[in-house]
Amino acid sequence: MTVLSKFRALRDEHAAVSAAGRDPFGVSFDAVLSATEALLGGRRILLLGTNNYLGLTFDPDCIDAAVTATQERGTGTTGSRIANGTYDGHAALERRLAAFLKRRSAMVFTTGYQANLGALSTLAGKGDHLLLDGDSHASIYDGARLGHAQVTRFRHNDPDDLRRRLRILSSQPGEKLIVAEGIYSMLGDTAPLREMAEVKREAGAWLLVDEAHSLGVLGEKGRGLAEAEGVEDDVDFVVGTFSKSLGAIGGFLASDLDGFDALRLSARPYMFTASLPPSVAASVLRAIDVMEARPELRDALRRNGQKLHEGLVAAGFLLSAMPSPIVSLSMPSRETAVMFWNRLLAEGVYTNLALGPATPGGKPLLRMSVSAALTPAQIDTAVDAITRTGHALGLLSVPLAAE
Amino acid sequence: MTVLSKFRALRDEHAAVSAAGRDPFGVSFDAVLSATEALLGGRRILLLGTNNYLGLTFDPDCIDAAVTATQERGTGTTGSRIANGTYDGHAALERRLAAFLKRRSAMVFTTGYQANLGALSTLAGKGDHLLLDGDSHASIYDGARLGHAQVTRFRHNDPDDLRRRLRILSSQPGEKLIVAEGIYSMLGDTAPLREMAEVKREAGAWLLVDEAHSLGVLGEKGRGLAEAEGVEDDVDFVVGTFSKSLGAIGGFLASDLDGFDALRLSARPYMFTASLPPSVAASVLRAIDVMEARPELRDALRRNGQKLHEGLVAAGFLLSAMPSPIVSLSMPSRETAVMFWNRLLAEGVYTNLALGPATPGGKPLLRMSVSAALTPAQIDTAVDAITRTGHALGLLSVPLAAE
Repeated sequence: MTVLSKFRALRDEHAAVSAAGRDPFGVSFDAVLSATEALLGGRRILLLGTNNYLGLTFDPDCIDAAVTATQERGTGTTGSRIANGTYDGHAALERRLAAFLKRRSAMVFTTGYQANLGALSTLAGKGDHLLLDGDSHASIYDGARLGHAQVTRFRHNDPDDLRRRLRILSSQPGEKLIVAEGIYSMLGDTAPLREMAEVKREAGAWLLVDEAHSLGVLGEKGRGLAEAEGVEDDVDFVVGTFSKSLGAIGGFLASDLDGFDALRLSARPYMFTASLPPSVAASVLRAIDVMEARPELRDALRRNGQKLHEGLVAAGFLLSAMPSPIVSLSMPSRETAVMFWNRLLAEGVYTNLALGPATPGGKPLLRMSVSAALTPAQIDTAVDAITRTGHALGLLSVPLAAE
Repeated sequence: MTVLSKFRALRDEHAAVSAAGRDPFGVSFDAVLSATEALLGGRRILLLGTNNYLGLTFDPDCIDAAVTATQERGTGTTGSRIANGTYDGHAALERRLAAFLKRRSAMVFTTGYQANLGALSTLAGKGDHLLLDGDSHASIYDGARLGHAQVTRFRHNDPDDLRRRLRILSSQPGEKLIVAEGIYSMLGDTAPLREMAEVKREAGAWLLVDEAHSLGVLGEKGRGLAEAEGVEDDVDFVVGTFSKSLGAIGGFLASDLDGFDALRLSARPYMFTASLPPSVAASVLRAIDVMEARPELRDALRRNGQKLHEGLVAAGFLLSAMPSPIVSLSMPSRETAVMFWNRLLAEGVYTNLALGPATPGGKPLLRMSVSAALTPAQIDTAVDAITRTGHALGLLSVPLAAE
């Protein structure tokens, strides 16, 4: 018996999942070669399970910016912004972000996880209320747990349920902060932001949208779902990350509200962590430039998501969400999901296996995501492999009415 | 009234602190030039308030490692280890860390803050007990809050109080995990680890030591306080950070216990965050090499800490802790602390102003820290400036008995 004995059931479960082939949660690449390919066990693998939406991790300009910053400003800052000060790169990135998002203020966190922890635990304090979508990302739940507000969950993407719950809370004092995500990471579905904004206005609540998966992806300028839906004026706080479309690490919180900078002296996940290395601040800043200068990347991403979606629908798969950069296949059982994932990898396609309880409804999923950097041929290859696997596992045995 | 109105008192307090000169928590450097110097408002400033203990942020080998990794592996990974896989750099760093620490297992987190969140929230579960030193770092408190264990605080660095509290808990079921820090960041004092290890053995508890400020600083090989005190066999878990002596960003958890890898599937701050960029993994790995190959850096750090300490004692300052890389001056009031900090900055010396409640006993502090990269002349300059300021503010007006 040790303090780790409590994880025995988890270990057994994990061993069972891994016994069918590889450990799906512990894949260790020999090398990641590009935004779309890696080497695994000496073989070239197609990456269809990243969040590298614009393919910017290997953008030459972003790499150059990171290299120059490392050479000029060193490998790190060795401390927090409040104690060790702000580097020129942090200040420049916050200005650039605010300008890009058309917000008065933006603050940078060292990870996207910490951005949600900081925002959720600080914006809603003791006596306030957080209204969280039931399918919220772990970082949102953890941020709520870290803080002292009362937490109410509403049914995923259900503005009526949100309205009902806000009415129940209407007699209670304290601010109400609604939290939604631009694109939900597991299924690729988007929040019904226009309806939610209406509910928010009715209730006199506040609205925070986490555009982690939608920044650089949705909206004419890439500002995310709120831009695409035309409701940016209703969004009081935008959270986002640098580790998806922007290809690095870190996160941010942006707003137009007065007194924003008080968060720099109250959000513990901002105050008590070392700030981003100069290389990261520099590559993210450049990535914003690239994202603005090259809207064709967003078009390519959209086309690629559409192509994968259509290819799978044509093959006979039932997809729940609309086309998006994230395409998930619902699996009939955990065993089939594990087998599907392994066979696909054997075919040279890396996807994400997602098992409950972290998935919507606790159902096993095969999650895929596309990048603007994928070629049509790569998507064809992936669709073929997925279709072969679906047939081999008996998921597509019925002749397809749609074809 | 907005959701930010709750911070009005904080804003007023901050405005009062900033009215005396600069905003001490919002210094924005024009440029950080080296491990010891920055430009601020066009002037060269001596950095005496970082955690750059070995000066490795500007080490040419570490910079080269970061640059090469960026060019070969890109600017980021765009996802978590469990979903997007492990890059070669992550695997190499975890092996290197485990070998350096002489531990069977090591796992890397994206920040040191998240390492403590992950360790504390996961190792001690529902029904378990966390015993935290009263002066623990914010990340330890936040990790405890994120988890579900019962939290008991013991008096700072007091093994007898720890023993008493463990006795009270002895009839209760659940594991007991004691948490201490190698060097406490505010005062630079070290934990009485030998006595604590004895208490731990008596009680059949577990011991976690956060060597954030002591890694690369204490111990013949730089493994930290546990090495220096000869009690590594009693330490079940080592937490540390890459953002201090190792000059980058990130953190780790290491152990010899069986079943360690279950933490990779249960520690949410590990699972639900993007992994470290290749450049960071590479520069940290190289920094461990440099730290091992150049023990003279540790000697220089020790000499510099000693020289600053002795210089201030000779000038008549009362220092509570033994010589260490962290040297703090207790201030008689918040106003004096703010004035002291501003005057020092005007003299060209950057230090950290620490006001309650985050400081031990809530007392205002002027915190300084040294780097191996500081020259004796730079330390003389600092001591002169601090002494002049102490005299100017009437803190050293009494003739000194010690001289």
